[in-house]
Amino acid sequence: MGTVNDWNEVAAQLGVDSIRSSTAAGSGHPTSSLSAAHLLAVLWSDHLRYDVADPKNLANDRFVLSKGHASPLMFSVLKAVGAITDEQLLTFRRFGSPVQGHPVPLPEMPWIDVATGSLGQGLPIALGMALAMKMDAIPARVWCLMGDSEVAEGSVWEAMENASHHGADNLIGIIDVNRLGQRGPTMLEWDLDAYAARARSFGWHPIEVDGHDVAAIDAAYAEAEGADRPAVVIAKTEKGHGVSFLANREGWHGKALSEEEAEKAIAELGGPRDVSVTPPKPETGVSPRADAPNVVLPVYAEAIATRKAFGETLAALAVRGDVVAIDGEVANSTHTEDLEKVAPDRFVESYIAEQNMLGMAVGMQALGKVVFPATFAAFLTRAYDFIRMAAISRANLRLSGSHAGVSIGEDGPSQMALEDLAMMRAVHGSTVLYPCDGNSTARLVAAMADLPAISYIRTTREKTPALYDDHEDFPIGGSKTLRSSDADRVTLVGAGITLHEALEAARSLEAEGISVRVVDCYSIKPIDAETLRDAVSQTGLLVTVEDHWSEGGLGDAVLAALADGGDLSGRVVKVAVTQMPGSGTPEELRDWAGISASAIADRVRSLLP
Amino acid sequence: MGTVNDWNEVAAQLGVDSIRSSTAAGSGHPTSSLSAAHLLAVLWSDHLRYDVADPKNLANDRFVLSKGHASPLMFSVLKAVGAITDEQLLTFRRFGSPVQGHPVPLPEMPWIDVATGSLGQGLPIALGMALAMKMDAIPARVWCLMGDSEVAEGSVWEAMENASHHGADNLIGIIDVNRLGQRGPTMLEWDLDAYAARARSFGWHPIEVDGHDVAAIDAAYAEAEGADRPAVVIAKTEKGHGVSFLANREGWHGKALSEEEAEKAIAELGGPRDVSVTPPKPETGVSPRADAPNVVLPVYAEAIATRKAFGETLAALAVRGDVVAIDGEVANSTHTEDLEKVAPDRFVESYIAEQNMLGMAVGMQALGKVVFPATFAAFLTRAYDFIRMAAISRANLRLSGSHAGVSIGEDGPSQMALEDLAMMRAVHGSTVLYPCDGNSTARLVAAMADLPAISYIRTTREKTPALYDDHEDFPIGGSKTLRSSDADRVTLVGAGITLHEALEAARSLEAEGISVRVVDCYSIKPIDAETLRDAVSQTGLLVTVEDHWSEGGLGDAVLAALADGGDLSGRVVKVAVTQMPGSGTPEELRDWAGISASAIADRVRSLLP
Repeated sequence: MGTVNDWNEVAAQLGVDSIRSSTAAGSGHPTSSLSAAHLLAVLWSDHLRYDVADPKNLANDRFVLSKGHASPLMFSVLKAVGAITDEQLLTFRRFGSPVQGHPVPLPEMPWIDVATGSLGQGLPIALGMALAMKMDAIPARVWCLMGDSEVAEGSVWEAMENASHHGADNLIGIIDVNRLGQRGPTMLEWDLDAYAARARSFGWHPIEVDGHDVAAIDAAYAEAEGADRPAVVIAKTEKGHGVSFLANREGWHGKALSEEEAEKAIAELGGPRDVSVTPPKPETGVSPRADAPNVVLPVYAEAIATRKAFGETLAALAVRGDVVAIDGEVANSTHTEDLEKVAPDRFVESYIAEQNMLGMAVGMQALGKVVFPATFAAFLTRAYDFIRMAAISRANLRLSGSHAGVSIGEDGPSQMALEDLAMMRAVHGSTVLYPCDGNSTARLVAAMADLPAISYIRTTREKTPALYDDHEDFPIGGSKTLRSSDADRVTLVGAGITLHEALEAARSLEAEGISVRVVDCYSIKPIDAETLRDAVSQTGLLVTVEDHWSEGGLGDAVLAALADGGDLSGRVVKVAVTQMPGSGTPEELRDWAGISASAIADRVRSLLP
Repeated sequence: MGTVNDWNEVAAQLGVDSIRSSTAAGSGHPTSSLSAAHLLAVLWSDHLRYDVADPKNLANDRFVLSKGHASPLMFSVLKAVGAITDEQLLTFRRFGSPVQGHPVPLPEMPWIDVATGSLGQGLPIALGMALAMKMDAIPARVWCLMGDSEVAEGSVWEAMENASHHGADNLIGIIDVNRLGQRGPTMLEWDLDAYAARARSFGWHPIEVDGHDVAAIDAAYAEAEGADRPAVVIAKTEKGHGVSFLANREGWHGKALSEEEAEKAIAELGGPRDVSVTPPKPETGVSPRADAPNVVLPVYAEAIATRKAFGETLAALAVRGDVVAIDGEVANSTHTEDLEKVAPDRFVESYIAEQNMLGMAVGMQALGKVVFPATFAAFLTRAYDFIRMAAISRANLRLSGSHAGVSIGEDGPSQMALEDLAMMRAVHGSTVLYPCDGNSTARLVAAMADLPAISYIRTTREKTPALYDDHEDFPIGGSKTLRSSDADRVTLVGAGITLHEALEAARSLEAEGISVRVVDCYSIKPIDAETLRDAVSQTGLLVTVEDHWSEGGLGDAVLAALADGGDLSGRVVKVAVTQMPGSGTPEELRDWAGISASAIADRVRSLLP
């Protein structure tokens, strides 16, 4: 155990190094670091059970810096524990350095598990880690340092409610109540009792503390460790603490000190130090699961809704002990309930809290889980910031969005995903899939389990006919040409529901002597550029059909692929939803939108000479 | 005042009509309607001060059905007050009917102010309405009916905190605690005390009530009306109340009754009735502001950051009494603080709660405000579901997103908007703007104030040189060709920051004898298709350059415009950000991404024969 003097020395060093690194960079957040220096000094010295030499050890406690702008403090801690050198610390915010402006997990920065910097995301992520530990009976804890400003984010309260509901007594939050946000006081300022009342009402054990009194902090952490529920240490702190001209002053958010100011501030903090910190070791070693069981995929000979095929495939994948599903209280619609039935301990209900769902997924995958979060595709828009940040976290996630497009019918536009393909294509490194039948869904969902980065499958509410047998392969980036001849005068490119409409249109056009090629573009990103280029060059006219707005979806993906191949030639027509739908039957709405078989056939007739 | 018997008769009629309409439709949510029938019977009979014949009267109280799936109840209320006929009620969920699956505001449905159906959005919207009333000193109230499941959404707590902080004592929430969500019990079930403790800790006045006891409901509403802070009526109800085989039963969410079941249920409710309800009238008439002052736009001769020009233009527009700005605690970064300085009563701080910010904006515009919500463009992703729903609400909103792309530099990827153009293009009816200098920003921001639907301006963190004088017009859907000659061998298309890089690249290529056309595509949606088609046909090679992922942004917009014009020819190359950035200077990062002047010039050289 450290002494009060030890902890204060560590805190002073963390403060000094936060100033040194941000002044060297010429930007950053030293004052937001100073407020939490004592909190982290005590945590990393004596409470976080963590093997610095083996940061991915599953037995480790985990630390999430939700207030990611306090990155100078984070990296100063990593220097103090010997993870990085002082020289590396001073590359803060430089081009090419892993010591980035906000923490990012990189191969050379394995002590950072997840990217932060978009506020309010740390607690949902930490909750996911805590629940992953419980799934594997790992006796470790997750500690999450939040700023007070970020507690205004609703995602924090989604996680608060979910944490107590799921019994996450291994989760400890710390709120650095330094009273000042970017441009002025927070709503609650130093009203610690108000924070405590809120936490208590959400089922947490709150502990109020002076955030610069190391002995009190130590006691608070001990109390939190002993709580029978998630605990939150609510610490009254000063932004810029320890430096006379910074402490509790407005106008210093996100500003590095000049060299002269830094010199003065460092002197006030007692000058540079060279203290080493060794966190306590984790209690036990834990081995990751190494089971590689034989997955038997479902086989479909009949019509089925792809959302149902998704659920059944997920249930089949659950023989793998690392597969987890999370849902937003619609598991009987997305069919993640099929996994819940066979592996209830690996199904997590996030209730109607999609941001928390995505945050939990990021936390779980950081501990090795193969996570499938699912909800209506329209409601994934609720969590777009979390998806964006997950890509920066280099997270491996498998998203499922059901109820795509106007084809959901009567429920109307609020439940129709018409922007999900655009949203998911614009995620770095993403894979975007949209199968049209049961067997292709099964193959693609199985592939997702082993894909890196963020993959997304769009599924359909209605049943669709079986098109493929169960021996067919569906490589990521591939397509299927379902009709083709030398006489083809047009290529119809569909995916999911529109593939069936395109096939029916092709049959009716064929009856009139118009030969039509049909391509199933089940992999929208990456896309089968070669097949598309051949199709447009051979048939001269290519028509994309999608149950999605015309911006950013299948049509734009096809055009980008064609442009990427060199000179453009031929004609490409995008058929998509262009007006705001209302209620109606799926058939009425597809017809109204111009994406039904008859509307497609009419469009082709109008386009051919 | 109604009697207990009157209210119960109205409630029974609302329940019967909810069943009749959903059974006629064959889908819908009768049980979620039955739980709240008494709550709305009392509200619309005796508390909501509302002129049914003049629903847009600013003196009216407003009602927001946050639990939008209880649409059968909403439309049954509208029938009871004489807004729609029974015949119209029975067109529920039919193709072409304004009586849609979830409430949507339409010209023929003026009693609905905003679309709901994505849960957790009603309270932020209602808060925006309440604050708009306060701005105009209108003594009206906003009532918002929420489901208990949706209270898990963090956006509800964002609004709870903002409401009490902003003193919205004219806002009354009602939570229909019917215990059952879509697939099972909620986290809190019937623990009304827990809801009350949470509300109290967030600064609200909670009132617990039996939601089927009309006298108690009446008293609760009276207490709420008299509260000195926002109040919430927490009502214990039964899903499917009043029907023996539905009440408090699982498995009935979102299911219409068969004809036989409906007949039985209606009999249990005492059969159909024909009761008319007349809500109390609003206290006073209020006229909308009719000021049309002369706006004097700022003029720029020097370099300025477009985010700053945005703020200064907003401040100039504030001579209009209807212009309002909302920010997410970064007003000194987005520069909405410039409006705050000149019109502090029309600046609303939403703190770090972007969903609440967008919700409030939708509510304010429903009462005639010209609202500009602003934050870092990256953090607008946090509110994508609200933006999507705002389009369904036919809302007029003016969004501003600052800190676009890798050009923000050292802060790193968490703060870089690289998907905002894709996200905003895929919003129905949206306008997407991206100016490159001060004067073009001023003109476009001024234009946004009068644009219908959802417009978005992307601004840059760094200063950029002045390119245009203050007499230049910038029509929406236009572009500016800044360099052009018959000898052009390539067209560079940029916008915002990349326009300057493209111009510099063109100058260096010109020095090598390569004549280059440069187009400023400041209007990305709608886009100047004609200029782009001419450019590609005249120069043969068109290169788009954007500080954005390659999916869904400027490049895809250009390709879509070219394809839309008929046969494709020529070559189009998209230059965009394709790898995950880290920290660095803006210059280093643009160079690394291949979107700097020198990188563009190199790319052009490699493309030319």
